[in-house]
Amino acid sequence: MSLLSETIAQIGPPDATASAAARTRQGQLTKPAGSLGRLEALAIQIAGITGQARPRLLRPAVIVMAADHGVAARGVSAFPAAVTPQMVLNFLGGGAAINVLARQVRARVVVVDMGVAAPIPPHPELIDRKVALGTADLAAGPAMSRGQALQALESGIGVAADVIAAGADSIATGDMGIGNTTASSAIVAALTGRPAAEVTGRGTGVDDSGLARKVAVVERALALHRPDPADPLGVLAAVGGFEIGGLAGVMLGAAARRLPVVVDGFISGAAALLACGLAPALQPYLIPAHRSVERGHAAILTRLDLDPLLDLGLRLGEGTGAALAISLCQAACRLLDEMATFDEAGVPGKE
Amino acid sequence: MSLLSETIAQIGPPDATASAAARTRQGQLTKPAGSLGRLEALAIQIAGITGQARPRLLRPAVIVMAADHGVAARGVSAFPAAVTPQMVLNFLGGGAAINVLARQVRARVVVVDMGVAAPIPPHPELIDRKVALGTADLAAGPAMSRGQALQALESGIGVAADVIAAGADSIATGDMGIGNTTASSAIVAALTGRPAAEVTGRGTGVDDSGLARKVAVVERALALHRPDPADPLGVLAAVGGFEIGGLAGVMLGAAARRLPVVVDGFISGAAALLACGLAPALQPYLIPAHRSVERGHAAILTRLDLDPLLDLGLRLGEGTGAALAISLCQAACRLLDEMATFDEAGVPGKE
Repeated sequence: MSLLSETIAQIGPPDATASAAARTRQGQLTKPAGSLGRLEALAIQIAGITGQARPRLLRPAVIVMAADHGVAARGVSAFPAAVTPQMVLNFLGGGAAINVLARQVRARVVVVDMGVAAPIPPHPELIDRKVALGTADLAAGPAMSRGQALQALESGIGVAADVIAAGADSIATGDMGIGNTTASSAIVAALTGRPAAEVTGRGTGVDDSGLARKVAVVERALALHRPDPADPLGVLAAVGGFEIGGLAGVMLGAAARRLPVVVDGFISGAAALLACGLAPALQPYLIPAHRSVERGHAAILTRLDLDPLLDLGLRLGEGTGAALAISLCQAACRLLDEMATFDEAGVPGKE
Repeated sequence: MSLLSETIAQIGPPDATASAAARTRQGQLTKPAGSLGRLEALAIQIAGITGQARPRLLRPAVIVMAADHGVAARGVSAFPAAVTPQMVLNFLGGGAAINVLARQVRARVVVVDMGVAAPIPPHPELIDRKVALGTADLAAGPAMSRGQALQALESGIGVAADVIAAGADSIATGDMGIGNTTASSAIVAALTGRPAAEVTGRGTGVDDSGLARKVAVVERALALHRPDPADPLGVLAAVGGFEIGGLAGVMLGAAARRLPVVVDGFISGAAALLACGLAPALQPYLIPAHRSVERGHAAILTRLDLDPLLDLGLRLGEGTGAALAISLCQAACRLLDEMATFDEAGVPGKE
């Protein structure tokens, strides 16, 4: 049995006893029933995921996976591919947006090279899982082999296992990779059947002609590969990215170990779509962080029946939206755990 | 010159130099321009408010004002009036939702008795500005005298001054008072001209007959007082609450000292509506925390041209939404201050 199929088999339903206990406690805390809105449901969800009636998220980890994309050579990004390795160095140096936001929620940032098209000097905070020096051009042939797709997924599972073994109690996902909105759009189109134009957006900020090029590239890839939506591994191989496969693996690995997975925006969403295609039982473990400006995100959220916590006009990736949402998850858990009950506080109940 | 008119006169426009410097820096940080969405605009706004090009919000204070309402005797709340003093004790004991959320953002909680209808034992963390033992029934006569309305406003200004003198660098507002959604609905109807049914909601959770009673009470109060929307002090006296007037004063006092004011939900919104009626220059100092479930909140947001940061189905008050939004304000400021620039990180810019 492969690590992938073993991991998928380990993903069970959330713990109904823990979530019921959390729900009961919500009704006893000093507030009108339901007045904390989504934060109440969120704490109940996390209780079910973790199996703890009063969970706390004290050691979150943001796993940021980076890789390059052969398709970037087709002018589908506003930035040159050289940005990918430089941003990896920026993550390692602590100067990127995700570093700042992770510091705020006291989360560890785990940087993983899944396939950057340049050598990255060794660094104590860098995990090297490089599958190859970037994918091949998805509009000319498969982005990767089926074996590489499996390798990316299983590397993600392994990274999640390592990070959890080191103490993480919750996982947020993030991405870096020039060209990866194009790959993600192709994945979303392949798995949802929506037309390319409907799921392809401006990424880091291409102009109208850049957007037209992106849509044409996605259409061309779909026509070339005719990917089978019932075969997520095949979709990943045809049009995916190493970091996208890796993030799908991270989600599966975290859910198998009963950790909540805070899913960032569009790229992480494409990974979630792949991962849920492989393991439908994953869905209740996912906490959708924010609604991305990127056009195709809506199709992902609809398909996975996820309603994001935040809507702040973000489109940066890196896990930035997920780090912000971790703060809400922590708040939801603290409220459930720390608030006084009506009895404890001597507050009269509803008349 | 009264403290109120002096304070209003001190509220100047935001600092255009500081906000321009913040805007320039946003364009130099290692991210595609605009990719942090509302967090970029938020940091620029806070720069303008504070006059600092790279502001930090390290010492936020949540000012929670409590008072009782004579109108509560008309059965407009799902909870008995005895909840108000008990919840004040809960705030002082650290067991309420706002205490938990304030701990998360390392904010001080300042509890102010503006007019609770019961004696509250002295406590080092309780500020006593009791105007009276609750307002009179707004559906039978004025809720308070014009002199009491001014006293409430100026008490709020004084509390803001004290809290800022003690080191606060940002203010969030919160409320507690059984019956105060009814008073707030009457304020919103009076100041916006909208019909009572459109701005009156279920508060802590009244059923259909309770809601019908609330609407009838607000209609009766409006017919009785015929409040003049051009006279916010008169509106406060006719249908307001001591905590609502106090919060309006807090907002004016904070803006006069160039601090950002994070405005919670419906009750704080009604206070903001009053305060902006008194001082239109206040608006740019306000940061709307969240979209409340309470029906009349939309009319406030439209009138004040405010778009809340969060939409989480909250309807608790206490400043809970504001405390959550403080975390976003802190994140926005940290990003502006701590992120590396393209030059510093050696990251290539847009092609």
